[in-house]
Amino acid sequence: MSNTIWSVDEHLEDVLAAVEPLEPIELQLPDAQGCVLVEDVTVPLALPPFDNSSMDGYAVRVADVAGASEEFPAVLTVIGDVAAGSGELPSVGPGEAARIMTGAPLPPGAEAVVPVEWTDGGTGGGAATGMRAASDAPEGASGEVRVHRPAEARAHVRARGSDVQAGDLALAAGTVLGPPQIGLLAAIGRGTVKVRPRPRVVVVSTGSELVQPGEKLGEGQIYDSNSFALAAAARDAGAIAYRVGAVTDDAETLRATVEDQLIRADLLVTTGGVSVGAYDVVKEALSSVGDEDEPGGGIDFRKLAMQPGKPQGFGSIGPDHTPLLALPGNPVSSYVSFELFVRPAIRTLMGLPDVHRPRARAALRTDKALTSPAARRQFLRGTYDEGASAVTPVGGSGSHLIAALAQADCLIVIPEDVTSVEPGSEVEVVLLG
Amino acid sequence: MSNTIWSVDEHLEDVLAAVEPLEPIELQLPDAQGCVLVEDVTVPLALPPFDNSSMDGYAVRVADVAGASEEFPAVLTVIGDVAAGSGELPSVGPGEAARIMTGAPLPPGAEAVVPVEWTDGGTGGGAATGMRAASDAPEGASGEVRVHRPAEARAHVRARGSDVQAGDLALAAGTVLGPPQIGLLAAIGRGTVKVRPRPRVVVVSTGSELVQPGEKLGEGQIYDSNSFALAAAARDAGAIAYRVGAVTDDAETLRATVEDQLIRADLLVTTGGVSVGAYDVVKEALSSVGDEDEPGGGIDFRKLAMQPGKPQGFGSIGPDHTPLLALPGNPVSSYVSFELFVRPAIRTLMGLPDVHRPRARAALRTDKALTSPAARRQFLRGTYDEGASAVTPVGGSGSHLIAALAQADCLIVIPEDVTSVEPGSEVEVVLLG
Repeated sequence: MSNTIWSVDEHLEDVLAAVEPLEPIELQLPDAQGCVLVEDVTVPLALPPFDNSSMDGYAVRVADVAGASEEFPAVLTVIGDVAAGSGELPSVGPGEAARIMTGAPLPPGAEAVVPVEWTDGGTGGGAATGMRAASDAPEGASGEVRVHRPAEARAHVRARGSDVQAGDLALAAGTVLGPPQIGLLAAIGRGTVKVRPRPRVVVVSTGSELVQPGEKLGEGQIYDSNSFALAAAARDAGAIAYRVGAVTDDAETLRATVEDQLIRADLLVTTGGVSVGAYDVVKEALSSVGDEDEPGGGIDFRKLAMQPGKPQGFGSIGPDHTPLLALPGNPVSSYVSFELFVRPAIRTLMGLPDVHRPRARAALRTDKALTSPAARRQFLRGTYDEGASAVTPVGGSGSHLIAALAQADCLIVIPEDVTSVEPGSEVEVVLLG
Repeated sequence: MSNTIWSVDEHLEDVLAAVEPLEPIELQLPDAQGCVLVEDVTVPLALPPFDNSSMDGYAVRVADVAGASEEFPAVLTVIGDVAAGSGELPSVGPGEAARIMTGAPLPPGAEAVVPVEWTDGGTGGGAATGMRAASDAPEGASGEVRVHRPAEARAHVRARGSDVQAGDLALAAGTVLGPPQIGLLAAIGRGTVKVRPRPRVVVVSTGSELVQPGEKLGEGQIYDSNSFALAAAARDAGAIAYRVGAVTDDAETLRATVEDQLIRADLLVTTGGVSVGAYDVVKEALSSVGDEDEPGGGIDFRKLAMQPGKPQGFGSIGPDHTPLLALPGNPVSSYVSFELFVRPAIRTLMGLPDVHRPRARAALRTDKALTSPAARRQFLRGTYDEGASAVTPVGGSGSHLIAALAQADCLIVIPEDVTSVEPGSEVEVVLLG
């Protein structure tokens, strides 16, 4: 690691330059949820595919119900039922009507639909409130119906193609597939769709001091929290996350673990072991993993003008040049680093249009001025009050305050050239939402 | 179904009164992501659990480095390494120093840490930029180190309990577990946690006209899109969703399917078959499923003062009184109904504090006035422009415009007593996020 100091923006730019959207694959619709479409999907058939009824009622000829009223109803012969999904349709002649259900095809001869509520429902009584179930009352499909109101041509008929026409663009490449888009794809008959898959992100925490939660702590040990927090954050960003329990501070073990994991990783994230200590084995191990002889391979370790999160590593490893980000081991440093660098990398792999967290401006709500080191961009944890456009810091600047992090919903950004921020000043916040 | 008309608000109130948060269970941390904590979690041990170094450097006694400078360094005997996770610690006597790594326990006798950059790193040369790896340079743990600056007592030492103290409240009951909260729970040693689980939601679409996407359409048939869209929407709301392919319009088949699914359902959602037609078998079948003799059981079918989405059913079925919502079959009606009634029900089952979509006020951006039926609350699809606080309708009011729905990101709410809305008027919008 040289003594050059990189800015947050330079590092982010380098990280994003090193990751490319994943190759698209054809996925079943439910598996494509949240993914980005890579093809323009055109409509193969008109929707609806045929003229159909928008009401439960009677399919009629317009002339037969002209002038009909409750006092002088049109009396029509019911020739049968047209249910949704009916294949063979009865032909409606003069003086005839067919019972028709919502979504059922308009039968030949019929020109309009009168809702059942505008008829006697075939009962010979007053206005109907509904039809009796066909299974209870099969005789409802025959006999006579009294129609109490006239209907214009095409009344209560949804025309073929009134939603979309064959050849229309249904969804453009680049669309993120949420529930309504999944619904539209299903409606036009697409069982599978070509998208960028969710990236598989492997999170490896390192440190001989780490013990898994639920186990007993020995002297000098702490619980592994990074692998849990970052796997959850990767999932939250849209990835499929695999958590690898803590790896001991031994370069050979770490190298073997990382090489083992390559097979299921589109992105590797490690925590710990990236600083200037004598046991910083991530740095030691990963400068020689896999593709050190290949162009573009290998991991760079850097110091960033940033607090927390100064030491960072990134690059690519293995035969497929799998991208890897090596984050610092402190829980708050690693989480902030994840938000700033890994989350945008994951969303770039997904091909999402917007890879960054939203930001806002807010008035700083504190009793006294905040201090910040010169020449470092500081990220403090805060709670954002959207209504008041204000932000309150939680916890101090100490990078180990994981308890405060769990109360925060934003990061307060103090720029490199600012060393003190007065109460009430406007600051930038990154909304963690 | 009587002729009484319920309001949207009355129906929502009845639906939410019929669902209760699920019974909590103990889950592994990764499985608890996105769930609501039901216990106050207190900190079982101080964090950090022991005084430890915040830097890579040397653990020293303050008196030994008093007045040290680059010109007149303090020369100390290096007695060994203290790595993170070290169990046995060397004792640092007068004139002695121990190499210490970030996170490693402060050894007995030592009072402060000097960063390696403030020393010669044991090389006998100028200021060090880091330590050589212990595996490369085991001799770094012995010999002499020149310290170039003094250190105050406790400098670069994180005190035991400076993050949280044993007995502190870590997270309060009701907290939603995102990545930082998962991280905090891991850090305090919790491998499992008591939360309300994600509800299992079974989505059943009904209709003899329905064909699965990817298959060939016959006469009078359309593709099943509701089961795909609503299962995706349920997942989006936080549920574990199971999609049941379309069930034919046969009451016995539907009843058997629903009874089969009860075993894996915390909530059942059906689409179609709830109107006044002769083949509306959901209504026919579900009025007699399972617990018709039990108090509080059975499904009510209603008309709502709403467009789209007029016919709705809800209630509970089966021996466990599993809640069921029967939505209309039209894709846009069912999606709007899901957003208004099912999503809040799912989030109530999860025990989430905020069950509703956010709403906003926006200026209506249209060329001409929008019309809306009297005595119905209309939900139009729109695109919301947050910056301009404006909303533009997409598609018309026709409830079958699934293509327009896929372009929308909000619902425009036109109240019951409004029949016309002028361009530029302020309207309420439901943000679909």
